[in-house]
Amino acid sequence: MSGSVWGKNFCVTTWGESHGYGIGAVVDGCPAGLPLTESVIQEYLDRRKPGMNKYATPRKEGDAVEILSGTFEGVTTGTSISLLIRNEDQRSRDYAEVAGRFRPGHADFTYMSKYGVRDYRGGGRSSGRETAGRVAAGAVALEALGLMGVKVVAFTKAIGGVEVDYGRMRMEDLDESPLYMPDMDASKRAEALMEAKMAEGDSLGGVVECVVTGMPVGVGEPVFDKLDANLAKALFSIGAVKGVEVGDGFAATRATGWENNDGMRMVEGGVRKTSNHAGGILGGMSDGSDILIRVAIKPTPSIKRRQETVTAGGEDVELELGGRHDPVIVPRAVVVVEAMVAITLLDMLFAGMSSRMDDVVRFYADKR
Amino acid sequence: MSGSVWGKNFCVTTWGESHGYGIGAVVDGCPAGLPLTESVIQEYLDRRKPGMNKYATPRKEGDAVEILSGTFEGVTTGTSISLLIRNEDQRSRDYAEVAGRFRPGHADFTYMSKYGVRDYRGGGRSSGRETAGRVAAGAVALEALGLMGVKVVAFTKAIGGVEVDYGRMRMEDLDESPLYMPDMDASKRAEALMEAKMAEGDSLGGVVECVVTGMPVGVGEPVFDKLDANLAKALFSIGAVKGVEVGDGFAATRATGWENNDGMRMVEGGVRKTSNHAGGILGGMSDGSDILIRVAIKPTPSIKRRQETVTAGGEDVELELGGRHDPVIVPRAVVVVEAMVAITLLDMLFAGMSSRMDDVVRFYADKR
Amino acid sequence: MSGSVWGKNFCVTTWGESHGYGIGAVVDGCPAGLPLTESVIQEYLDRRKPGMNKYATPRKEGDAVEILSGTFEGVTTGTSISLLIRNEDQRSRDYAEVAGRFRPGHADFTYMSKYGVRDYRGGGRSSGRETAGRVAAGAVALEALGLMGVKVVAFTKAIGGVEVDYGRMRMEDLDESPLYMPDMDASKRAEALMEAKMAEGDSLGGVVECVVTGMPVGVGEPVFDKLDANLAKALFSIGAVKGVEVGDGFAATRATGWENNDGMRMVEGGVRKTSNHAGGILGGMSDGSDILIRVAIKPTPSIKRRQETVTAGGEDVELELGGRHDPVIVPRAVVVVEAMVAITLLDMLFAGMSSRMDDVVRFYADKR
Amino acid sequence: MSGSVWGKNFCVTTWGESHGYGIGAVVDGCPAGLPLTESVIQEYLDRRKPGMNKYATPRKEGDAVEILSGTFEGVTTGTSISLLIRNEDQRSRDYAEVAGRFRPGHADFTYMSKYGVRDYRGGGRSSGRETAGRVAAGAVALEALGLMGVKVVAFTKAIGGVEVDYGRMRMEDLDESPLYMPDMDASKRAEALMEAKMAEGDSLGGVVECVVTGMPVGVGEPVFDKLDANLAKALFSIGAVKGVEVGDGFAATRATGWENNDGMRMVEGGVRKTSNHAGGILGGMSDGSDILIRVAIKPTPSIKRRQETVTAGGEDVELELGGRHDPVIVPRAVVVVEAMVAITLLDMLFAGMSSRMDDVVRFYADKR
Repeated sequence: MSGSVWGKNFCVTTWGESHGYGIGAVVDGCPAGLPLTESVIQEYLDRRKPGMNKYATPRKEGDAVEILSGTFEGVTTGTSISLLIRNEDQRSRDYAEVAGRFRPGHADFTYMSKYGVRDYRGGGRSSGRETAGRVAAGAVALEALGLMGVKVVAFTKAIGGVEVDYGRMRMEDLDESPLYMPDMDASKRAEALMEAKMAEGDSLGGVVECVVTGMPVGVGEPVFDKLDANLAKALFSIGAVKGVEVGDGFAATRATGWENNDGMRMVEGGVRKTSNHAGGILGGMSDGSDILIRVAIKPTPSIKRRQETVTAGGEDVELELGGRHDPVIVPRAVVVVEAMVAITLLDMLFAGMSSRMDDVVRFYADKR
Repeated sequence: MSGSVWGKNFCVTTWGESHGYGIGAVVDGCPAGLPLTESVIQEYLDRRKPGMNKYATPRKEGDAVEILSGTFEGVTTGTSISLLIRNEDQRSRDYAEVAGRFRPGHADFTYMSKYGVRDYRGGGRSSGRETAGRVAAGAVALEALGLMGVKVVAFTKAIGGVEVDYGRMRMEDLDESPLYMPDMDASKRAEALMEAKMAEGDSLGGVVECVVTGMPVGVGEPVFDKLDANLAKALFSIGAVKGVEVGDGFAATRATGWENNDGMRMVEGGVRKTSNHAGGILGGMSDGSDILIRVAIKPTPSIKRRQETVTAGGEDVELELGGRHDPVIVPRAVVVVEAMVAITLLDMLFAGMSSRMDDVVRFYADKR
Repeated sequence: MSGSVWGKNFCVTTWGESHGYGIGAVVDGCPAGLPLTESVIQEYLDRRKPGMNKYATPRKEGDAVEILSGTFEGVTTGTSISLLIRNEDQRSRDYAEVAGRFRPGHADFTYMSKYGVRDYRGGGRSSGRETAGRVAAGAVALEALGLMGVKVVAFTKAIGGVEVDYGRMRMEDLDESPLYMPDMDASKRAEALMEAKMAEGDSLGGVVECVVTGMPVGVGEPVFDKLDANLAKALFSIGAVKGVEVGDGFAATRATGWENNDGMRMVEGGVRKTSNHAGGILGGMSDGSDILIRVAIKPTPSIKRRQETVTAGGEDVELELGGRHDPVIVPRAVVVVEAMVAITLLDMLFAGMSSRMDDVVRFYADKR
Repeated sequence: MSGSVWGKNFCVTTWGESHGYGIGAVVDGCPAGLPLTESVIQEYLDRRKPGMNKYATPRKEGDAVEILSGTFEGVTTGTSISLLIRNEDQRSRDYAEVAGRFRPGHADFTYMSKYGVRDYRGGGRSSGRETAGRVAAGAVALEALGLMGVKVVAFTKAIGGVEVDYGRMRMEDLDESPLYMPDMDASKRAEALMEAKMAEGDSLGGVVECVVTGMPVGVGEPVFDKLDANLAKALFSIGAVKGVEVGDGFAATRATGWENNDGMRMVEGGVRKTSNHAGGILGGMSDGSDILIRVAIKPTPSIKRRQETVTAGGEDVELELGGRHDPVIVPRAVVVVEAMVAITLLDMLFAGMSSRMDDVVRFYADKR
């Protein structure tokens, strides 16, 4: 069944494998009149580009995006926007060794079981490279949200258990940390841990946290298309994600109602919560506070240590992976998280426009 | 926008408020030939019924389900199945006090902000009562999965931080624990904590764990309709859910790739994983191991302690809730989790039938 | 697969068989703040009620609608609206004769082939009675459109080849004609034809024409969710419909471009077409002219003349239907056409709200 | 809103404008294991290519398709298939004259009204060139249907009122007729009419008929996703289509039930209809007979005769179009009709696999 389409009103379809012609996304339902050029999208893509630091695979790709449709003279026209990122570096010989062997922690076995055929030249569609399409599409959404005063910022919250301390957090340090951690002390400790694990041919995972500011109140469509439900789906659809929590998340299960409820007070004529344990979402709708989401990302499954696995032919074998692999993908996942959050928020913002009859009547009356 | 519809091929639409005529679900896309009677569905509903023990609101409702369409002589006909649960006990006077005041931790404020009107007689559509429709629909899915050898079992993993110890876990004890915890020691400690918090007019939350056995390999539709992505959406759409994790979940972020990867070995002619950190899902598809999911449920927001809030008119006020409220909803949420998981699994099982061309060709050739 | 759900933003799910508990519809995505009571919906339902004149089956049903959810104090709340019409008259003994025999022109054979089971007490889900749910849901849409100045009016254009003459058409006569034809001369001739065919135990079909006035320009979402494409689907989904045309329709295939193109002129500061061969839709979007659609409805398949058919067991038999059957369903289909058109227009009007970035930005800026 | 996505299980997303980089389609949900190469798709595309005869615009385009993803070693892998057709001939100067003027019969005015911006270099997204993406995607569907024994063949039924006589019809003549009419006598008369109209700078429309053989019985999902309903939507979404009819279509409205009903008889152990007025669809499901659909295509709106129109600035002007335009698009639309029919049939065939519980149970039991 079709599974590469996401969103109802703002709808993203992606395609592409790690070792084929390229990666792409079609963004359908983007409103007309949004300024959009390749250089704008490129900025987002550059943040997930391989080879950006020593914790990322040295595979060098320009990851240059091309806009093939949907804009005219630098502005969206309302028609579907086709985005293309060509694969430049398709050395498939590195993968010869794994052609017949299912890599542990990878989707090789499940893809083969489901489809009966497999493009063994790499992760194919389950490769991290697939996320380039998400980021390109997300860039469109992020630009649109920007015009509406909605900001989506994510960062590395933890690597291998080393966590950013909120008290010491400085968003200004974000770009200084090769791990994209806004706490240089935590970043240094995480880097040391990375070095140790890389020396063993092992890898690490971590947590990405995403903060959304400026969301209007009441966005989300109960009871199934709740804002947190759609965000959770969008984030869980990223490869390697094993958990999502909103606000206090799992910690809330250890608190009491009294501790976890956010009070409300009038501030400057508006309703403000006195705390934000809920993470900006109540009843599946944005409540005006910052939206806070955390995403658990498992350690990179591609490791150099010897592992037990089986072949497609049904033989037990050992596997030691060579080749180029990120010892941690968390820093590169940060912009992917932002992209998926943005796509989902924009879709739900469009959906929310028909929540009230008087809004709809006024909208079309103004058009006449 | 429409938000009360879930699923593509097996599709559930729910309706109903806590204080209206009743709660209902329309199950569309259920195959013909599934034995289905009201008594079968009733068994599932009875598990979430209010008043079943001292930790649940004493509000008494029969919660009797009626099948209004879609079956003939005890078997589904392939047409849409309408399920109705009438509200019997609609005392709205208890709610008069909260008509104009937004309850902290509830969706009162967001509903009012979004829609401009609000059925103040209760939680309306955001009431826990809404889940009755999910359970009724889920019962249909659970029956269908049963025929396919797929079992979905959930239980209370933790209450207020008191956790079931996997080593001591006995699923046989499940029904003996009023908290639906399969570890009588943990259950007793959690009950003691409940008593203490109830005495303070406070409430608790917890974690529900769900285990799925018997899933075929390769179910899930990358890259957006991954099995875990759709499960996460389904579970996050349940009110009070603040987190979802699959397999080791957030704990995986503290492990290395070597620790977290599941090896593979041939066992009795089939591929078996040597561990299950992945929780039964690899690359967004079932991998043949048990599917393991945990759901974080926040403490019940309805508490008797005094809280700060505001009125719809924009005044700061204090609120002390009277009335009948569950001091913990986790045990009643267990069957809701099973229901949402089942609905999602069945939908994806149907979706997976067209994964291979030869399967499709053979399917229709056999029909001729 | 699920097939009883229509619409993305304004979404209607229907259920119910001719001889079960009743017929229902769930309207999801209706904006909050729309005045809606049972008596308002009832007016529309009364227009399709059986037994309203001698050309309709004498089966007597109150067809009283009940609103089970989604409104509070006479106004929609934004949550899903459940509508119920109970079946009062379920005499199934009339159908005993056809239990094992596939009625020609009916869906008996295809339902049995597809599902393997069949509720033989009547047409089941393929009965004309199913349209009651459409009309109830359509009433909600028609009320919403009314607030926006959009009017949807349908009438019988032809019965058995006897056509309304546009030159003689008087919409005021509509209710006087038992066939719902706004041309009393044509109506009388069609009535005479009806009498003749009824005497032979035969039946007739006809054409329903629908006119929509007041649509804003630019509604419709190319290239697949074009306004005419969605209208065509909505109308073809009504049982017995065999053709749909917009504007000049099939007649346009006999004209030249010069004859068929509609010129444009500025009138009172606005663009006006100098003719309306296009039927109000250009490029899949409303063009500001009246939308004109015609729907071909086949003759009622339930006739008293002897027909050749087969049994479920695979025997050739003859069939003479007794029982109560409409000798023509066209007049009763008129309000069904209006309902399906209205549901579709409203869905697309909601969809169109995010066509321009500046509209979206302004919409949410106004909300702050 | 998103409108360039069609299908639930077999899902096609298209993009591209007449004067941009190219035209593309993403086919998502194609089963793995379907042989698919560029040359296979190319055969279908060549049939709609401009410049194939004197009745088509002399604009020369290779229309060479490239498969960018979703296949490996000539076979589909189950992942989304990206298809690209580059625009080679993008002379936009021809269009300078129409930049500010709304062409009658075109979507210029509605696009401008909806989106506020317009790519004036041609029809943009409403250009006939958009159909190249449909044909490329349709080729995938047609190949898959071929493996299942389902054949989709369309032809020109009429041009400007000159109709193919069924009695004289010879499908072998199809390729000999420059108008794709399988009746050389009708073709010659239509050609003469074409010449006459071309001399006047005028254009013609016509009717395309499509015949589907080999469809399994019971495909289609009542009540909204009926087979005819989805086919009607798919066909009406093609630019220039103004009507769709199934079987006898509008002619059925002039028949009686006795004349229009198809009887049934057992033939060689199977149920066969004694006629096919229904056009192969009963109750929204395939009935085993050939599916017969006719599509009304309006005369090409681009004509050289002087027309009245207005400018974007609101001035009345006259317009005489120069440039290259097809005087009739019907012959080129034939393969587009086949493509849209095939996409829809395949989607519904996949949907139909979960119609019966025993089929589903057996399907997955066979997988273990």
